[in-house]
This record gives sequence, structure tokens and C-alpha cells, in this order.
Amino acid sequence: MRWARIDLEGAPTFGIVEGNEIETVTGTPFGEYAGTGRRLDLGSVTFLPPVFPPTFYCVGLNYLDHILEQAKKKGVEPNVPQQPDVGYRAQSALIGHGADVIIPADAPERVHYEGELVVVIGKQAKNVSEADALDIVFGYTIGNDVSQRDWQYGDRTMWRGKNCDTFKPMGPWIETDVDLDSLETSVRVNGKPVITFPTNNMLFGVEKYISTISKYVTFQPGDVLWMGTEGSSPNLVDGDVVEIDINQIGVLRNRFVKEKQ
Amino acid sequence: MRWARIDLEGAPTFGIVEGNEIETVTGTPFGEYAGTGRRLDLGSVTFLPPVFPPTFYCVGLNYLDHILEQAKKKGVEPNVPQQPDVGYRAQSALIGHGADVIIPADAPERVHYEGELVVVIGKQAKNVSEADALDIVFGYTIGNDVSQRDWQYGDRTMWRGKNCDTFKPMGPWIETDVDLDSLETSVRVNGKPVITFPTNNMLFGVEKYISTISKYVTFQPGDVLWMGTEGSSPNLVDGDVVEIDINQIGVLRNRFVKEKQ
Repeated sequence: MRWARIDLEGAPTFGIVEGNEIETVTGTPFGEYAGTGRRLDLGSVTFLPPVFPPTFYCVGLNYLDHILEQAKKKGVEPNVPQQPDVGYRAQSALIGHGADVIIPADAPERVHYEGELVVVIGKQAKNVSEADALDIVFGYTIGNDVSQRDWQYGDRTMWRGKNCDTFKPMGPWIETDVDLDSLETSVRVNGKPVITFPTNNMLFGVEKYISTISKYVTFQPGDVLWMGTEGSSPNLVDGDVVEIDINQIGVLRNRFVKEKQ
Repeated sequence: MRWARIDLEGAPTFGIVEGNEIETVTGTPFGEYAGTGRRLDLGSVTFLPPVFPPTFYCVGLNYLDHILEQAKKKGVEPNVPQQPDVGYRAQSALIGHGADVIIPADAPERVHYEGELVVVIGKQAKNVSEADALDIVFGYTIGNDVSQRDWQYGDRTMWRGKNCDTFKPMGPWIETDVDLDSLETSVRVNGKPVITFPTNNMLFGVEKYISTISKYVTFQPGDVLWMGTEGSSPNLVDGDVVEIDINQIGVLRNRFVKEKQ
């Protein structure tokens, strides 16, 4: 089942995607809902992030090649995490599928994509075992953890490096039926393939992260957990279109636009 | 004017505080609201965090003595910020005035308070000048940025060190009429004064932070910005009661309770 969230005449509205159409609902997939019978062509709608998360969790270093490549570029020893520590991103940076990523006018050139699997939590839960972890998952979507590397490494925090307005595209929808081990992430820039990797080839998987975090933190319905990325990105410039494609889920497509001075 | 948010028979409800009473309202202070005429004694209500922020901003190092003391304890050179970078905290950790802070059973002993001024944003805004910054502020409340220092410095991120469930008391209410320069923060542990400092004696003040952040980020009504703390804290133990008192605003009081193994 696929859940999207769209801008319906100014009102954020959930809907169920079937083929090339979406049927809007009243309510939310995390509580009560009912179909309205109103169907819209997917090509005609404005997608919002499929959920506005109460808390926005994001895993920083979770694929080995990404860690090695970033360390090499920085000229430092790779720091491979020994335990699944989680970070945070800003809700203010979220945009939906199809919206433009705005590169700030004064951003140096190393603006990169990071294609990520996003776990959407469905239940309030604490102290979840690894064996039970997937039971609290509502579904999965796709995130692009857009990063400006000079700010990421030069500032004291990642606020500008990772959380400028529009730097967190998420979508296009939440897919509830996914087999993690057969997922594959492919990224295209302007239609040209740049990387393909097995999505679940993580240092610490979804079950491990959920179980670890939930020892100290209560998850809430709608929380999201971005799972990190593999590889590296070319520098993105004005007009570039980035597609993050995860089979079984969909394609998250966003154009990058340089802000005018 | 003082705005609180209380648990009214299970429903989060805003209200206006007058003396020892609160009058509940329908709606929110960030949009339309209307008084209900229902008045409750403040001693009888359960306080919630006075707002659930869309994005939760927090300044890490903003008072000189705190920076020098933390560096000395860690045995490193003090790192005084040269620009106002902002961090984030997790909404999942928020609790209200009067609720217990639960110290996890396996937390090492260095559990500390950090008494902070909290700015509550009232308007959607981007590219705000320092001169106009206070115009987007709805009011001010108080935060306790509870920290477990071993996890804060030992983990790769601050997720456990700063964001365990209940580690972010905020309240008791939002005061809309405040003169920043005459604010004074006092902290008491079990009724005994431990520190008093001029609240606005910051490296980078409220106006500077709002202006800087808003160059890259759009603020939304209800966003909160915790402004950092001065000094250091004793190790807090089971049963300790911490009060953060900022004149003109109020007193945020929370008991610390050690979780049973």
C-alpha cells in the first residue's frame, strides 16, 4: 500500500496511491481515516513530504564505502562507527517529491546528494527488541540528505551543511510492503546513472537502530529514521535533476536551483 | 501575558495564566483562539511543554564560563565559537514543568542540569535583520538542557547525552512581555542556590542568532530556540529537585528520579 501526502487547495491531505491515481482520505494513516472517493491523477498533484515527523532521526555514517570516501577527501583516517549512534535533522528543511532544492547564493560548490532509505514509524514504542523492531515500522520512503560539505565540516554544527531550507527532500510516498534485503538504491543525475548499491548493506541495520534508540527514547507514530547513504556525489549545479530510485518504493526526483544573489 | 499548555482530561489545551489561575482557550496562541471561561487553579493542573515545536533549535556554547569550565573538566583547550552555529534537540525528550526527569538505570553519574532561556518564535520569517529579530518572537520560556556528560562526549552524536526521554523539561509557560537585558537566571538544587547569572550575557544574543539562522532557514510559529547555559552543575542523583528561575518569566521545577534496573 502506498500513502502520499499532497497539497489539496492549500490543505495538506493524505491519500492512497493506486497506479497513476491517488484517492484522498480524511484523517491520517497513523490513526483513523476514510476514503473520500475523490481521485486525482498523480501527474496533476503537488507532493508534500509524506509525513511531517514529530522527531526527525538521521543516521550519519552507515555504509562503509561512503565513510572511506569522505575520510579520503578530508585527508583523515576513516572513523568507522562502533555503535549505532543516531543524529537529527531539521523539519524546517523538508520538501516533497518534485519541489526544487534551492542552493543558497553563497554556498560553495560542493553541494552533494545523499540517497537514503527512510523508515517511517507507525506505533508508539520503547524498549523494542531487534526481533520485534520491524513490527513498529509503518512503511518506507526515500530521502535525499542534501549536504554542503564546506559548511558541514567547517561549521561547529551541521545546521547549514545539512539543514538549509529545501535540503531534505522526502518522498514520493510511503510504501508499506517492502522486503528490506531485496532493496536496491540507484541514483541518477540528469538521467545518467551514478551509483547503485544494495540498500540493506548497512553497518547497522533498521532492526539494530530501532532497538538501540528505543532503549532511551520513545518512538512516536510518524517519526522518521533516515538510514544513511553509500558512495559519494558529484558537485551539483544549477539545473541538475537528481533521482533517488529504490525498487519496491519509487523514485524521488528534485531539481537543484541556484538562488540568485 | 502568560501562555501555558496543560493536559485537560487527556487533551493538550492552551490557556492564559492570570495570578494563580489559568483560563483555558480553544485554538492556539499562534493562530485564532477564544477564552472558554473555564478557570482552573494552577496547583491542580498538569503542565505540558508550553509548545510542541515544529523545529527544535538549541545553542550549544553561548556563555564564556560554561565553555571554560567544560574544557577544563575535559582537559582540552577551550573552543570559543567564532560564529553563531545552531544545533538541534529531539522533540521526543520534551516534558513539562513538574514532570519527573528519569535518569536511565545505566547512566553514569555525571547527570547535569543546564538552565536556559528559551525563545519561542511567533511568525513565519526568513532573512530577518538583527534590528527586526525581536519582532518575530512570540515570547520566552525556560528550558533545562539535561545532559549526561559521558554519553555527550563519548558517543558520536548527542542522542543519549542530551535527548533521552524526559531530558528536555520546558516551561512552566511562555511570557510574552520580557526585557532581555534585565533578566537574571538562578538555579536551585533542593532549594539551595547554586548559580545566578545575567541571562543576556551571551556570546551571541537572541537578535544575532535569529538573524543568522534566518539567512538559510525559515522560522515557523512555535519553533523554539534554546539559548545555552552558564556555569556547571553538580552530579544530580535520585530525588534531586532542580529549579530554573528566570525573573519576569517564572520557575521551571523538575524532580530527578533514577530508573530502577
